[in-house]
Amino acid sequence: MLRHGLQMARGLCQLVSHKFSVGLHRNIMKHLLPINATGHAWSPLRNIRAVTMAPWPFSSSQPRDYSLPNASWSAEMQRLYDHYSSMCEVEAEGGEKKKGAWRRLPSYNRTLKYATGGQCLSKMLQAKARLFTRNIEEQGAGFEYVVFINKEEKTCVCVFQAGHLLEGPPGHVHGGAIATIIDSVTGTHATYVSGPVMTANLTINYRSPVPLGSVVLVHSALEKVEGRKTFISCQVTSSDGTKLHTEATGLFVSINVSHLFGA
Amino acid sequence: MLRHGLQMARGLCQLVSHKFSVGLHRNIMKHLLPINATGHAWSPLRNIRAVTMAPWPFSSSQPRDYSLPNASWSAEMQRLYDHYSSMCEVEAEGGEKKKGAWRRLPSYNRTLKYATGGQCLSKMLQAKARLFTRNIEEQGAGFEYVVFINKEEKTCVCVFQAGHLLEGPPGHVHGGAIATIIDSVTGTHATYVSGPVMTANLTINYRSPVPLGSVVLVHSALEKVEGRKTFISCQVTSSDGTKLHTEATGLFVSINVSHLFGA
Repeated sequence: MLRHGLQMARGLCQLVSHKFSVGLHRNIMKHLLPINATGHAWSPLRNIRAVTMAPWPFSSSQPRDYSLPNASWSAEMQRLYDHYSSMCEVEAEGGEKKKGAWRRLPSYNRTLKYATGGQCLSKMLQAKARLFTRNIEEQGAGFEYVVFINKEEKTCVCVFQAGHLLEGPPGHVHGGAIATIIDSVTGTHATYVSGPVMTANLTINYRSPVPLGSVVLVHSALEKVEGRKTFISCQVTSSDGTKLHTEATGLFVSINVSHLFGA
Repeated sequence: MLRHGLQMARGLCQLVSHKFSVGLHRNIMKHLLPINATGHAWSPLRNIRAVTMAPWPFSSSQPRDYSLPNASWSAEMQRLYDHYSSMCEVEAEGGEKKKGAWRRLPSYNRTLKYATGGQCLSKMLQAKARLFTRNIEEQGAGFEYVVFINKEEKTCVCVFQAGHLLEGPPGHVHGGAIATIIDSVTGTHATYVSGPVMTANLTINYRSPVPLGSVVLVHSALEKVEGRKTFISCQVTSSDGTKLHTEATGLFVSINVSHLFGA
Protein backbone atom coordinates (compact mmCIF):
# COMPACT_ATOMS: atom_id res chain seq x y z
CA MET A 1 0.00 0.00 0.00
CA LEU A 2 2.78 2.42 0.92
CA ARG A 3 4.30 2.18 -2.52
CA HIS A 4 1.33 4.00 -3.96
CA GLY A 5 2.61 7.09 -2.23
CA LEU A 6 1.06 10.13 -0.67
CA GLN A 7 -0.57 11.34 -3.86
CA MET A 8 -2.68 8.26 -4.13
CA ALA A 9 -3.37 8.24 -0.43
CA ARG A 10 -4.77 11.72 -0.46
CA GLY A 11 -6.68 10.97 -3.63
CA LEU A 12 -8.35 8.08 -1.97
CA CYS A 13 -9.49 10.27 0.88
CA GLN A 14 -12.07 11.80 -1.41
CA LEU A 15 -13.84 8.50 -1.92
CA VAL A 16 -17.49 9.00 -2.55
CA SER A 17 -18.94 5.96 -0.97
CA HIS A 18 -19.11 6.60 2.73
CA LYS A 19 -18.29 2.98 3.12
CA PHE A 20 -15.04 3.47 1.37
CA SER A 21 -14.38 7.07 2.15
CA VAL A 22 -14.18 6.39 5.84
CA GLY A 23 -12.61 2.99 5.51
CA LEU A 24 -9.89 3.52 2.98
CA HIS A 25 -9.03 6.80 4.53
CA ARG A 26 -8.38 5.17 7.84
CA ASN A 27 -6.22 2.49 6.39
CA ILE A 28 -4.01 4.76 4.36
CA MET A 29 -3.87 7.93 6.35
CA LYS A 30 -2.77 6.32 9.59
CA HIS A 31 0.46 5.38 7.85
CA LEU A 32 1.05 8.46 5.77
CA LEU A 33 -0.16 11.56 7.55
CA PRO A 34 1.38 13.16 10.64
CA ILE A 35 -0.42 12.87 13.96
CA ASN A 36 -2.82 15.75 14.33
CA ALA A 37 -1.99 18.75 16.43
CA THR A 38 -4.21 17.92 19.36
CA GLY A 39 -2.61 14.53 19.78
CA HIS A 40 -6.02 12.89 20.02
CA ALA A 41 -6.53 9.33 19.00
CA TRP A 42 -7.16 8.98 15.27
CA SER A 43 -10.71 9.71 14.14
CA PRO A 44 -11.90 8.93 10.61
CA LEU A 45 -14.28 11.84 10.52
CA ARG A 46 -11.76 14.34 11.78
CA ASN A 47 -9.25 13.39 9.14
CA ILE A 48 -11.83 13.43 6.37
CA ARG A 49 -12.74 16.96 7.28
CA ALA A 50 -9.11 18.02 7.29
CA VAL A 51 -8.48 16.54 3.88
CA THR A 52 -11.61 18.09 2.46
CA MET A 53 -10.31 21.47 3.51
CA ALA A 54 -6.94 20.96 1.81
CA PRO A 55 -7.66 18.60 -1.05
CA TRP A 56 -4.36 18.62 -2.86
CA PRO A 57 -3.77 16.86 -5.34
CA PHE A 58 -7.40 17.27 -6.37
CA SER A 59 -8.68 19.87 -8.78
CA SER A 60 -9.31 23.34 -7.42
CA SER A 61 -13.09 23.08 -7.77
CA GLN A 62 -14.93 21.75 -4.76
CA PRO A 63 -16.82 18.50 -5.45
CA ARG A 64 -20.57 18.59 -4.91
CA ASP A 65 -21.65 17.22 -1.56
CA TYR A 66 -24.82 15.29 -2.41
CA SER A 67 -25.89 15.04 1.21
CA LEU A 68 -26.75 18.74 1.42
CA PRO A 69 -30.34 19.99 0.88
CA ASN A 70 -31.51 20.83 -2.64
CA ALA A 71 -34.69 22.12 -4.23
CA SER A 72 -36.09 18.63 -4.80
CA TRP A 73 -36.27 17.85 -1.09
CA SER A 74 -39.77 17.65 0.30
CA ALA A 75 -40.75 19.54 3.46
CA GLU A 76 -40.57 16.25 5.39
CA MET A 77 -37.06 15.51 4.09
CA GLN A 78 -35.91 19.01 5.04
CA ARG A 79 -37.55 18.77 8.47
CA LEU A 80 -35.75 15.53 9.27
CA TYR A 81 -32.47 16.92 7.97
CA ASP A 82 -32.88 19.96 10.20
CA HIS A 83 -33.78 17.74 13.14
CA TYR A 84 -30.62 15.64 12.94
CA SER A 85 -28.44 18.58 11.92
CA SER A 86 -29.51 20.41 15.07
CA MET A 87 -28.03 17.58 17.11
CA CYS A 88 -24.66 17.84 15.38
CA GLU A 89 -23.92 21.07 17.21
CA VAL A 90 -25.33 21.87 20.63
CA GLU A 91 -25.24 24.96 22.80
CA ALA A 92 -22.87 24.74 25.74
CA GLU A 93 -22.83 26.90 28.88
CA GLY A 94 -22.20 30.53 28.06
CA GLY A 95 -23.98 30.23 24.72
CA GLU A 96 -21.02 28.71 22.89
CA LYS A 97 -21.58 26.02 20.32
CA LYS A 98 -19.92 22.65 20.68
CA LYS A 99 -20.08 19.39 18.83
CA GLY A 100 -23.03 17.18 19.59
CA ALA A 101 -23.27 13.41 19.50
CA TRP A 102 -24.27 13.33 15.83
CA ARG A 103 -22.29 13.93 12.66
CA ARG A 104 -23.51 14.41 9.11
CA LEU A 105 -21.47 12.41 6.61
CA PRO A 106 -20.67 14.15 3.31
CA SER A 107 -21.34 12.22 0.10
CA TYR A 108 -19.75 12.47 -3.35
CA ASN A 109 -20.55 10.79 -6.62
CA ARG A 110 -17.39 8.94 -7.33
CA THR A 111 -14.28 7.47 -5.98
CA LEU A 112 -11.45 9.28 -7.60
CA LYS A 113 -13.02 11.99 -9.72
CA TYR A 114 -11.04 14.73 -8.10
CA ALA A 115 -7.71 13.02 -8.04
CA THR A 116 -5.26 14.08 -10.74
CA GLY A 117 -2.87 11.74 -12.45
CA GLY A 118 -0.95 8.82 -11.08
CA GLN A 119 -0.45 5.61 -12.98
CA CYS A 120 -2.24 3.56 -10.35
CA LEU A 121 -5.33 5.71 -10.51
CA SER A 122 -5.76 5.49 -14.26
CA LYS A 123 -5.36 1.75 -14.12
CA MET A 124 -7.83 1.33 -11.34
CA LEU A 125 -10.92 2.99 -12.62
CA GLN A 126 -12.68 3.98 -15.73
CA ALA A 127 -12.85 7.75 -15.99
CA LYS A 128 -16.62 7.75 -16.20
CA ALA A 129 -17.34 5.57 -13.17
CA ARG A 130 -19.85 6.96 -10.69
CA LEU A 131 -21.15 5.76 -7.36
CA PHE A 132 -24.35 3.78 -7.96
CA THR A 133 -26.39 5.75 -5.41
CA ARG A 134 -25.25 9.11 -6.83
CA ASN A 135 -25.23 8.36 -10.55
CA ILE A 136 -28.14 10.61 -11.56
CA GLU A 137 -27.49 14.32 -11.80
CA GLU A 138 -31.15 15.41 -11.87
CA GLN A 139 -32.05 16.43 -8.35
CA GLY A 140 -34.85 14.39 -6.81
CA ALA A 141 -34.94 11.78 -9.56
CA GLY A 142 -32.91 9.05 -7.86
CA PHE A 143 -31.60 8.52 -4.34
CA GLU A 144 -31.82 11.66 -2.22
CA TYR A 145 -30.33 10.80 1.12
CA VAL A 146 -28.21 12.01 3.97
CA VAL A 147 -26.53 9.88 6.63
CA PHE A 148 -26.01 10.94 10.23
CA ILE A 149 -23.92 8.92 12.64
CA ASN A 150 -24.03 8.89 16.43
CA LYS A 151 -20.65 8.02 17.83
CA GLU A 152 -21.85 7.49 21.36
CA GLU A 153 -24.81 5.28 20.59
CA LYS A 154 -23.06 3.54 17.67
CA THR A 155 -26.07 4.07 15.46
CA CYS A 156 -26.69 5.61 12.05
CA VAL A 157 -29.78 7.24 10.65
CA CYS A 158 -30.32 7.89 6.96
CA VAL A 159 -33.08 10.19 5.74
CA PHE A 160 -34.04 8.84 2.31
CA GLN A 161 -36.35 10.33 -0.31
CA ALA A 162 -37.02 7.85 -3.12
CA GLY A 163 -37.16 9.53 -6.54
CA HIS A 164 -39.30 8.61 -9.52
CA LEU A 165 -36.49 6.71 -11.28
CA LEU A 166 -36.42 4.05 -8.55
CA GLU A 167 -39.67 2.35 -9.47
CA GLY A 168 -40.27 -1.38 -9.08
CA PRO A 169 -43.88 -2.38 -8.45
CA PRO A 170 -46.16 0.28 -9.99
CA GLY A 171 -46.00 3.40 -7.83
CA HIS A 172 -43.56 1.85 -5.36
CA VAL A 173 -39.81 1.64 -4.81
CA HIS A 174 -37.92 -1.29 -6.37
CA GLY A 175 -36.77 -3.93 -3.90
CA GLY A 176 -33.27 -3.53 -5.31
CA ALA A 177 -33.28 0.19 -4.57
CA ILE A 178 -34.25 -0.56 -0.98
CA ALA A 179 -31.48 -3.16 -0.80
CA THR A 180 -29.10 -0.55 -2.20
CA ILE A 181 -29.81 2.10 0.41
CA ILE A 182 -29.62 -0.57 3.14
CA ASP A 183 -26.24 -1.79 1.85
CA SER A 184 -24.98 1.79 1.66
CA VAL A 185 -26.07 2.80 5.15
CA THR A 186 -25.07 -0.39 6.96
CA GLY A 187 -21.80 -0.52 5.01
CA THR A 188 -21.04 3.05 5.97
CA HIS A 189 -21.76 2.21 9.56
CA ALA A 190 -19.58 -0.93 9.52
CA THR A 191 -16.73 1.02 7.97
CA TYR A 192 -17.01 3.69 10.59
CA VAL A 193 -16.68 1.02 13.27
CA SER A 194 -14.16 -1.35 11.70
CA GLY A 195 -12.33 0.42 8.88
CA PRO A 196 -12.35 -0.94 5.29
CA VAL A 197 -14.96 -3.65 4.82
CA MET A 198 -16.81 -5.50 2.09
CA THR A 199 -20.39 -6.68 2.30
CA ALA A 200 -20.41 -10.46 2.92
CA ASN A 201 -24.13 -10.97 3.59
CA LEU A 202 -27.35 -9.02 3.38
CA THR A 203 -30.57 -10.56 4.65
CA ILE A 204 -33.57 -8.40 3.88
CA ASN A 205 -37.19 -8.89 4.91
CA TYR A 206 -39.61 -6.70 3.00
CA ARG A 207 -42.64 -6.01 5.22
CA SER A 208 -44.56 -3.35 3.30
CA PRO A 209 -43.81 -1.54 0.02
CA VAL A 210 -42.39 1.99 0.05
CA PRO A 211 -44.43 4.46 -2.06
CA LEU A 212 -42.45 6.21 -4.76
CA GLY A 213 -41.58 9.77 -3.74
CA SER A 214 -41.99 9.16 -0.02
CA VAL A 215 -39.44 9.90 2.69
CA VAL A 216 -38.36 7.08 4.97
CA LEU A 217 -35.80 6.60 7.71
CA VAL A 218 -33.11 3.93 7.56
CA HIS A 219 -31.96 3.08 11.08
CA SER A 220 -28.71 1.17 11.46
CA ALA A 221 -27.42 -0.33 14.73
CA LEU A 222 -24.15 -2.07 15.55
CA GLU A 223 -24.83 -5.56 16.86
CA LYS A 224 -21.32 -6.91 17.46
CA VAL A 225 -17.77 -7.16 16.17
CA GLU A 226 -16.10 -10.58 16.10
CA GLY A 227 -12.60 -10.57 14.69
CA ARG A 228 -12.87 -9.47 11.06
CA LYS A 229 -16.67 -9.61 11.13
CA THR A 230 -18.93 -6.65 11.86
CA PHE A 231 -22.64 -7.34 12.32
CA ILE A 232 -25.17 -4.57 11.69
CA SER A 233 -28.98 -4.57 11.95
CA CYS A 234 -31.22 -2.20 10.05
CA GLN A 235 -34.82 -1.06 9.83
CA VAL A 236 -36.54 1.07 7.22
CA THR A 237 -39.53 2.89 8.67
CA SER A 238 -41.93 5.63 7.71
CA SER A 239 -40.64 9.10 8.53
CA ASP A 240 -42.66 9.21 11.77
CA GLY A 241 -41.37 5.78 12.76
CA THR A 242 -44.81 4.19 13.05
CA LYS A 243 -44.69 1.94 9.99
CA LEU A 244 -42.06 -0.73 9.42
CA HIS A 245 -41.24 -1.14 5.74
CA THR A 246 -38.14 -3.35 5.80
CA GLU A 247 -35.89 -5.17 8.26
CA ALA A 248 -32.38 -6.32 7.44
CA THR A 249 -29.09 -7.58 8.79
CA GLY A 250 -25.69 -7.05 7.25
CA LEU A 251 -22.43 -8.89 7.78
CA PHE A 252 -19.29 -7.03 6.76
CA VAL A 253 -15.78 -8.45 6.59
CA SER A 254 -12.69 -6.32 7.08
CA ILE A 255 -10.42 -6.26 4.04
CA ASN A 256 -7.04 -5.10 2.94
CA VAL A 257 -8.04 -2.56 0.32
CA SER A 258 -4.98 -3.19 -1.76
CA HIS A 259 -6.72 -6.35 -3.00
CA LEU A 260 -9.23 -4.18 -4.82
CA PHE A 261 -6.50 -2.46 -6.74
CA GLY A 262 -4.58 -5.58 -7.64
CA ALA A 263 -1.66 -4.47 -5.46
CA MET B 1 -60.15 -5.05 -9.91
CA LEU B 2 -62.81 -5.43 -12.52
CA ARG B 3 -64.07 -1.95 -11.94
CA HIS B 4 -60.84 -0.57 -13.41
CA GLY B 5 -62.08 -1.81 -16.76
CA LEU B 6 -60.52 -3.08 -19.88
CA GLN B 7 -58.63 0.10 -20.61
CA MET B 8 -56.65 -0.16 -17.42
CA ALA B 9 -56.22 -3.89 -17.86
CA ARG B 10 -54.62 -3.53 -21.24
CA GLY B 11 -52.52 -0.65 -20.02
CA LEU B 12 -51.12 -2.79 -17.31
CA CYS B 13 -50.07 -5.43 -19.80
CA GLN B 14 -47.23 -3.19 -20.91
CA LEU B 15 -45.59 -3.31 -17.50
CA VAL B 16 -41.89 -2.90 -17.78
CA SER B 17 -40.74 -4.94 -14.88
CA HIS B 18 -40.79 -8.55 -15.98
CA LYS B 19 -41.84 -9.33 -12.47
CA PHE B 20 -44.95 -7.29 -12.85
CA SER B 21 -45.48 -7.55 -16.54
CA VAL B 22 -45.97 -11.26 -16.34
CA GLY B 23 -47.70 -11.24 -13.01
CA LEU B 24 -50.21 -8.43 -13.32
CA HIS B 25 -51.01 -9.48 -16.79
CA ARG B 26 -52.03 -12.90 -15.63
CA ASN B 27 -54.24 -11.62 -12.87
CA ILE B 28 -56.12 -9.10 -14.94
CA MET B 29 -56.23 -10.66 -18.35
CA LYS B 30 -57.65 -13.96 -17.22
CA HIS B 31 -60.77 -12.10 -16.17
CA LEU B 32 -61.05 -9.63 -18.99
CA LEU B 33 -59.80 -11.14 -22.23
CA PRO B 34 -61.46 -13.90 -24.24
CA ILE B 35 -59.92 -17.35 -24.22
CA ASN B 36 -57.38 -17.65 -26.97
CA ALA B 37 -58.24 -19.36 -30.23
CA THR B 38 -56.28 -22.52 -29.61
CA GLY B 39 -58.04 -23.13 -26.34
CA HIS B 40 -54.75 -23.83 -24.60
CA ALA B 41 -54.34 -23.25 -20.92
CA TRP B 42 -53.39 -19.68 -20.17
CA SER B 43 -49.73 -18.75 -20.70
CA PRO B 44 -48.27 -15.45 -19.46
CA LEU B 45 -45.78 -15.21 -22.29
CA ARG B 46 -48.30 -15.99 -25.01
CA ASN B 47 -50.62 -13.25 -23.83
CA ILE B 48 -47.86 -10.72 -23.41
CA ARG B 49 -46.81 -11.26 -26.97
CA ALA B 50 -50.37 -10.87 -28.18
CA VAL B 51 -50.85 -7.63 -26.34
CA THR B 52 -47.57 -6.25 -27.59
CA MET B 53 -48.78 -6.81 -31.11
CA ALA B 54 -52.05 -4.95 -30.51
CA PRO B 55 -51.25 -2.38 -27.86
CA TRP B 56 -54.43 -0.31 -27.80
CA PRO B 57 -54.89 2.02 -25.82
CA PHE B 58 -51.18 2.74 -25.94
CA SER B 59 -49.57 5.28 -28.18
CA SER B 60 -48.83 4.24 -31.76
CA SER B 61 -45.06 4.28 -31.30
CA GLN B 62 -43.49 1.02 -30.28
CA PRO B 63 -41.74 1.17 -26.89
CA ARG B 64 -38.04 0.36 -26.84
CA ASP B 65 -37.25 -3.20 -25.84
CA TYR B 66 -34.19 -2.82 -23.64
CA SER B 67 -33.37 -6.52 -23.77
CA LEU B 68 -32.26 -6.33 -27.41
CA PRO B 69 -28.57 -5.89 -28.36
CA ASN B 70 -27.12 -2.40 -28.68
CA ALA B 71 -23.75 -0.89 -29.55
CA SER B 72 -22.57 -0.87 -25.95
CA TRP B 73 -22.67 -4.63 -25.63
CA SER B 74 -19.30 -6.30 -25.40
CA ALA B 75 -18.41 -9.25 -27.61
CA GLU B 76 -18.93 -11.53 -24.62
CA MET B 77 -22.39 -10.10 -23.91
CA GLN B 78 -23.36 -10.54 -27.57
CA ARG B 79 -21.95 -14.08 -27.67
CA LEU B 80 -24.02 -15.14 -24.68
CA TYR B 81 -27.12 -13.43 -26.09
CA ASP B 82 -26.64 -15.31 -29.36
CA HIS B 83 -26.09 -18.55 -27.48
CA TYR B 84 -29.37 -18.39 -25.58
CA SER B 85 -31.27 -16.87 -28.49
CA SER B 86 -30.29 -19.83 -30.65
CA MET B 87 -32.09 -22.07 -28.18
CA CYS B 88 -35.31 -20.09 -28.43
CA GLU B 89 -35.95 -21.45 -31.89
CA VAL B 90 -34.73 -24.85 -33.08
CA GLU B 91 -34.77 -26.58 -36.40
CA ALA B 92 -37.36 -29.32 -36.71
CA GLU B 93 -37.45 -32.14 -39.28
CA GLY B 94 -37.76 -30.82 -42.80
CA GLY B 95 -35.79 -27.69 -41.94
CA GLU B 96 -38.71 -25.86 -40.36
CA LYS B 97 -38.16 -23.69 -37.34
CA LYS B 98 -40.07 -24.39 -34.15
CA LYS B 99 -40.00 -22.97 -30.65
CA GLY B 100 -37.26 -24.21 -28.39
CA ALA B 101 -37.28 -24.61 -24.64
CA TRP B 102 -36.06 -21.09 -24.03
CA ARG B 103 -37.78 -17.71 -24.34
CA ARG B 104 -36.29 -14.23 -24.29
CA LEU B 105 -38.30 -11.85 -22.11
CA PRO B 106 -38.75 -8.33 -23.47
CA SER B 107 -38.02 -5.44 -21.12
CA TYR B 108 -39.36 -1.89 -21.03
CA ASN B 109 -38.48 1.10 -18.91
CA ARG B 110 -41.71 1.83 -17.15
CA THR B 111 -45.02 0.56 -16.09
CA LEU B 112 -47.58 2.68 -17.79
CA LYS B 113 -45.68 4.94 -20.13
CA TYR B 114 -47.63 3.87 -23.17
CA ALA B 115 -51.05 3.87 -21.60
CA THR B 116 -53.21 6.88 -22.39
CA GLY B 117 -55.62 8.46 -19.96
CA GLY B 118 -57.81 6.92 -17.30
CA GLN B 119 -58.34 8.46 -13.93
CA CYS B 120 -56.92 5.47 -12.10
CA LEU B 121 -53.68 5.60 -14.06
CA SER B 122 -52.99 9.25 -13.39
CA LYS B 123 -53.64 8.73 -9.73
CA MET B 124 -51.42 5.70 -9.50
CA LEU B 125 -48.17 6.89 -10.87
CA GLN B 126 -46.13 9.95 -11.48
CA ALA B 127 -45.72 10.58 -15.19
CA LYS B 128 -41.96 10.49 -14.93
CA ALA B 129 -41.62 7.17 -13.12
CA ARG B 130 -39.17 4.70 -14.66
CA LEU B 131 -38.18 1.17 -13.80
CA PHE B 132 -35.10 1.28 -11.56
CA THR B 133 -33.09 -1.13 -13.72
CA ARG B 134 -33.90 0.75 -16.93
CA ASN B 135 -33.73 4.34 -15.72
CA ILE B 136 -30.61 5.42 -17.63
CA GLU B 137 -30.97 6.18 -21.34
CA GLU B 138 -27.24 6.08 -22.13
CA GLN B 139 -26.51 2.68 -23.55
CA GLY B 140 -23.98 0.69 -21.56
CA ALA B 141 -23.88 3.09 -18.59
CA GLY B 142 -26.19 1.22 -16.24
CA PHE B 143 -27.77 -2.22 -16.26
CA GLU B 144 -27.47 -3.96 -19.63
CA TYR B 145 -29.24 -7.27 -19.29
CA VAL B 146 -31.45 -9.78 -20.98
CA VAL B 147 -33.44 -12.54 -19.31
CA PHE B 148 -34.11 -15.95 -20.85
CA ILE B 149 -36.49 -18.44 -19.29
CA ASN B 150 -36.62 -22.18 -19.75
CA LYS B 151 -40.16 -23.44 -19.25
CA GLU B 152 -39.22 -27.10 -19.11
CA GLU B 153 -36.37 -26.81 -16.65
CA LYS B 154 -38.04 -24.02 -14.66
CA THR B 155 -34.85 -22.00 -14.73
CA CYS B 156 -33.92 -18.46 -15.78
CA VAL B 157 -30.63 -17.09 -17.01
CA CYS B 158 -29.82 -13.41 -17.15
CA VAL B 159 -26.83 -12.11 -19.11
CA PHE B 160 -25.75 -8.95 -17.28
CA GLN B 161 -23.17 -6.35 -18.28
CA ALA B 162 -22.51 -3.92 -15.42
CA GLY B 163 -22.03 -0.33 -16.63
CA HIS B 164 -19.78 2.36 -15.21
CA LEU B 165 -22.60 4.05 -13.28
CA LEU B 166 -23.03 1.03 -10.99
CA GLU B 167 -19.86 1.51 -8.98
CA GLY B 168 -19.55 0.63 -5.30
CA PRO B 169 -16.04 -0.37 -4.17
CA PRO B 170 -13.52 1.32 -6.47
CA GLY B 171 -13.58 -0.43 -9.83
CA HIS B 172 -16.27 -2.89 -8.78
CA VAL B 173 -20.05 -3.21 -8.88
CA HIS B 174 -22.05 -1.88 -5.92
CA GLY B 175 -23.54 -4.57 -3.66
CA GLY B 176 -26.91 -2.86 -4.10
CA ALA B 177 -26.67 -3.14 -7.88
CA ILE B 178 -25.99 -6.86 -7.54
CA ALA B 179 -28.94 -7.17 -5.16
CA THR B 180 -31.04 -5.30 -7.72
CA ILE B 181 -30.30 -7.62 -10.63
CA ILE B 182 -30.86 -10.62 -8.34
CA ASP B 183 -34.22 -9.24 -7.18
CA SER B 184 -35.23 -8.53 -10.76
CA VAL B 185 -34.29 -11.94 -12.14
CA THR B 186 -35.62 -14.06 -9.27
CA GLY B 187 -38.77 -11.91 -9.08
CA THR B 188 -39.34 -12.36 -12.79
CA HIS B 189 -38.91 -16.07 -12.37
CA ALA B 190 -41.28 -16.25 -9.39
CA THR B 191 -43.91 -14.29 -11.29
CA TYR B 192 -43.61 -16.57 -14.25
CA VAL B 193 -44.28 -19.53 -11.98
CA SER B 194 -46.86 -18.08 -9.58
CA GLY B 195 -48.40 -14.94 -11.06
CA PRO B 196 -48.24 -11.58 -9.27
CA VAL B 197 -45.78 -11.62 -6.37
CA MET B 198 -43.91 -9.26 -4.09
CA THR B 199 -40.42 -9.87 -2.74
CA ALA B 200 -40.69 -10.96 0.91
CA ASN B 201 -37.08 -11.94 1.56
CA LEU B 202 -33.72 -11.72 -0.14
CA THR B 203 -30.70 -13.39 1.43
CA ILE B 204 -27.52 -12.58 -0.43
CA ASN B 205 -24.02 -13.91 0.14
CA TYR B 206 -21.32 -11.95 -1.63
CA ARG B 207 -18.40 -14.27 -2.40
CA SER B 208 -16.19 -12.18 -4.67
CA PRO B 209 -16.61 -8.66 -6.09
CA VAL B 210 -17.77 -8.16 -9.68
CA PRO B 211 -15.43 -5.91 -11.74
CA LEU B 212 -17.11 -2.87 -13.26
CA GLY B 213 -17.80 -3.38 -16.96
CA SER B 214 -17.68 -7.16 -16.81
CA VAL B 215 -20.33 -9.59 -18.04
CA VAL B 216 -21.75 -12.11 -15.60
CA LEU B 217 -24.50 -14.71 -15.64
CA VAL B 218 -27.35 -14.69 -13.15
CA HIS B 219 -28.78 -18.19 -12.83
CA SER B 220 -32.17 -18.57 -11.17
CA ALA B 221 -33.77 -21.90 -10.19
CA LEU B 222 -37.20 -22.69 -8.76
CA GLU B 223 -36.84 -24.46 -5.44
CA LYS B 224 -40.47 -24.99 -4.40
CA VAL B 225 -43.92 -23.46 -4.17
CA GLU B 226 -45.81 -23.71 -0.88
CA GLY B 227 -49.22 -22.07 -0.92
CA ARG B 228 -48.65 -18.37 -1.53
CA LYS B 229 -44.87 -18.72 -1.17
CA THR B 230 -42.46 -19.24 -4.07
CA PHE B 231 -38.84 -20.04 -3.24
CA ILE B 232 -36.09 -19.26 -5.74
CA SER B 233 -32.33 -19.77 -5.55
CA CYS B 234 -29.81 -17.76 -7.50
CA GLN B 235 -26.14 -17.66 -8.39
CA VAL B 236 -24.10 -14.93 -10.04
CA THR B 237 -21.09 -16.37 -11.85
CA SER B 238 -18.46 -15.26 -14.31
CA SER B 239 -19.55 -15.56 -17.93
CA ASP B 240 -17.73 -18.89 -18.32
CA GLY B 241 -19.31 -20.20 -15.11
CA THR B 242 -16.02 -20.92 -13.37
CA LYS B 243 -16.10 -18.15 -10.75
CA LEU B 244 -18.88 -17.75 -8.20
CA HIS B 245 -19.49 -14.08 -7.38
CA THR B 246 -22.74 -14.20 -5.40
CA GLU B 247 -25.26 -16.68 -4.04
CA ALA B 248 -28.78 -15.78 -3.02
CA THR B 249 -32.22 -17.04 -2.14
CA GLY B 250 -35.48 -15.20 -2.67
CA LEU B 251 -38.89 -15.72 -1.12
CA PHE B 252 -41.82 -14.25 -3.03
CA VAL B 253 -45.39 -14.02 -1.80
CA SER B 254 -48.37 -14.02 -4.15
CA ILE B 255 -50.42 -10.86 -3.94
CA ASN B 256 -53.66 -9.36 -5.10
CA VAL B 257 -52.33 -6.53 -7.23
CA SER B 258 -55.29 -4.31 -6.50
CA HIS B 259 -53.65 -3.60 -3.13
CA LEU B 260 -50.88 -1.72 -4.91
CA PHE B 261 -53.38 0.59 -6.53
CA GLY B 262 -55.42 1.26 -3.40
CA ALA B 263 -58.39 -0.59 -4.91
